[in-house]
Amino acid sequence: MVSKNFGFGTQIRKSPYFDSTVKWGAAGFSVYNHMYIPRDFGNPEQNFWNLIEKSILCDVAVERQVEITGPDAYKFTQLLTPRDLSKLAVGQCKYVLITNNDGGILNDPVLLRLAENHFWLSLADSDVLLWAQGVAVNSGLNVKVSEPDVSPLQLQGPTSGEIMIKLFGEDIKDLKYYWLRELELDGIPLIVSRTGWSSELGYEIYLRDGSKGNILYEKIMEAGKEHGLQPGHTSSIRRIEGGMLSYHADADINTNPFELGLDRLINLDSEVNFIGKDALKKIKQDGVKRKQVGLELDCESLERPNTTFWSIYKNGKNVGKITSAVYSPRLKKNIALAMIKVNHSEIGNTLKVSINDAEINCIIVEKPFYDPKKKIASS
Amino acid sequence: MVSKNFGFGTQIRKSPYFDSTVKWGAAGFSVYNHMYIPRDFGNPEQNFWNLIEKSILCDVAVERQVEITGPDAYKFTQLLTPRDLSKLAVGQCKYVLITNNDGGILNDPVLLRLAENHFWLSLADSDVLLWAQGVAVNSGLNVKVSEPDVSPLQLQGPTSGEIMIKLFGEDIKDLKYYWLRELELDGIPLIVSRTGWSSELGYEIYLRDGSKGNILYEKIMEAGKEHGLQPGHTSSIRRIEGGMLSYHADADINTNPFELGLDRLINLDSEVNFIGKDALKKIKQDGVKRKQVGLELDCESLERPNTTFWSIYKNGKNVGKITSAVYSPRLKKNIALAMIKVNHSEIGNTLKVSINDAEINCIIVEKPFYDPKKKIASS
Repeated sequence: MVSKNFGFGTQIRKSPYFDSTVKWGAAGFSVYNHMYIPRDFGNPEQNFWNLIEKSILCDVAVERQVEITGPDAYKFTQLLTPRDLSKLAVGQCKYVLITNNDGGILNDPVLLRLAENHFWLSLADSDVLLWAQGVAVNSGLNVKVSEPDVSPLQLQGPTSGEIMIKLFGEDIKDLKYYWLRELELDGIPLIVSRTGWSSELGYEIYLRDGSKGNILYEKIMEAGKEHGLQPGHTSSIRRIEGGMLSYHADADINTNPFELGLDRLINLDSEVNFIGKDALKKIKQDGVKRKQVGLELDCESLERPNTTFWSIYKNGKNVGKITSAVYSPRLKKNIALAMIKVNHSEIGNTLKVSINDAEINCIIVEKPFYDPKKKIASS
Repeated sequence: MVSKNFGFGTQIRKSPYFDSTVKWGAAGFSVYNHMYIPRDFGNPEQNFWNLIEKSILCDVAVERQVEITGPDAYKFTQLLTPRDLSKLAVGQCKYVLITNNDGGILNDPVLLRLAENHFWLSLADSDVLLWAQGVAVNSGLNVKVSEPDVSPLQLQGPTSGEIMIKLFGEDIKDLKYYWLRELELDGIPLIVSRTGWSSELGYEIYLRDGSKGNILYEKIMEAGKEHGLQPGHTSSIRRIEGGMLSYHADADINTNPFELGLDRLINLDSEVNFIGKDALKKIKQDGVKRKQVGLELDCESLERPNTTFWSIYKNGKNVGKITSAVYSPRLKKNIALAMIKVNHSEIGNTLKVSINDAEINCIIVEKPFYDPKKKIASS
């Protein structure tokens, strides 16, 4: 899997960091947005400890960007998301949902505002480029929608701040949570934002020249040496602890934002127009039939995350499914995100889950499972 | 890779045939349309011989369908493709391109017409569901665009006809190339079409009930026993011999149909309206700058397909790239599809290609490399 000839052809792209990640020990890859993503540097539990005790560098070039420019770029971007963008300053980021006409979720990107009419959607795994270009066709708005040569890295963990200072100087300390800056590193053009997918202190470093990928990766690893930086991958353990979504696993085109309890991302009370508004109004009015909950599973430590959706039962009846489950070595518990019928979704309810023909007891608990106010990441 | 726990989570879907393919020897998977696809049943050369001498059964559930229904379904589907659909009968299929407003290729699906206003786009690897839903938003057309519970298999090879007779009776002999039928197999609901991705005689069998995947797979393998049927995967060797495209490898959003010589799929001379028409008119008028060609490479037999784009040089100058290359054990040659500058694209031209730091001679030849008139598949 990790030889130079990794893969079945040119149909799946290699990241600009591919050679460096292999050199630093990447042993297994998944595919995301038509590109390989390293998902295995040995023990995933060690990767978790590396992340929460020191820091890790993750190749997330698969977070492809949809770039929206042109005189109507702001108006068009607002059309794409139910979140109110009227207070999004230039230099600011927001976590947003992209919804279709039925209020179904197509993606949950981070939106970056680089200039008055210059936006990036930093994507989860779906071709929002096609969605946005399709919407643009008959929109009557003057915009250009394209995929730029941009490939992010995530530098995440408690020592990431010190590494960033070493790379970019003391000034970087002033970069606030969910804000961005345009920077260079030895002439390599970058955008840097204080965002990530770990619920830890962390930064995303968006490379704007794909030919410089391996050079950038090595520079950051070098700077991080004295701060315990390890090569790594996004941690399923940490993101489930933090209650963060993995698109296709915890949400898909048939999931609506209210089922996920993401009401704060949905702006129905202003005059702002966006795709899915009518459908979302109706869903809110009618109430949801399913709801995402946190679960604790009463069984031996899971060896790894679930690779199928596990069915949940109450009194022998199917009432939902576990979407993401993992053993947290810090909490010493099996924790999971699940989608279940709303009348079974109360905290404290006990349910059964079917795992490889075994029946396991589980209980609904508060989520996120750790640091519920996101103090670690945001302070 | 092939255990029950295969994968990194639920983020990538398993096909309804997953368990059967593992049971029958699938040893490696790629990802396509957010779903695992078996791409390794041992030796790819043996898979090629199995295909051209007997037949193979391929899990191509990754060919997700975009279903278009509603009173304006015909009009909307025509809007999505430059191919003239006015003569597409109910029960007929066509190979089509989906183009964006710039004439760039978003996908190259097979279009199936199931009823007057009921279409499926049987996709290559991109989220055309999002594209089509995006286009629909402001189109003013009354359509429903969704992904149905449909998962195709490909049964391909010279004995596939006999296997189909055994499964469905003598009637199936009348099914013509690029036509479809609605059928059942022991109560399992199916669509069957005479299409495929092998340039051999072949059929696609679209399962319309995902819960029956493994049952269907086993039934077909059982019926094929006496006809030499083997489990397999789409063959890079055969499809490159046949000059068939692999999306993302040989074409992408920045490729236009004329660069691929697919003029026959572009209808610019009627009043029919479709997305990209103006752009394609201009491209045709101005002439293309690049062109796809077939190449023979003068080097040792390639061990496997290229996994990066190989640069092509003339007199030391970069003039293009090899998109797909493979050794054909039947032709006893290394053959490739390449995109090169139009002024270097003449048959007989010699060029250099850079492969892992070695410089190899190559020559432009006619393509397809085998059975150029598609007599095998269509007769």
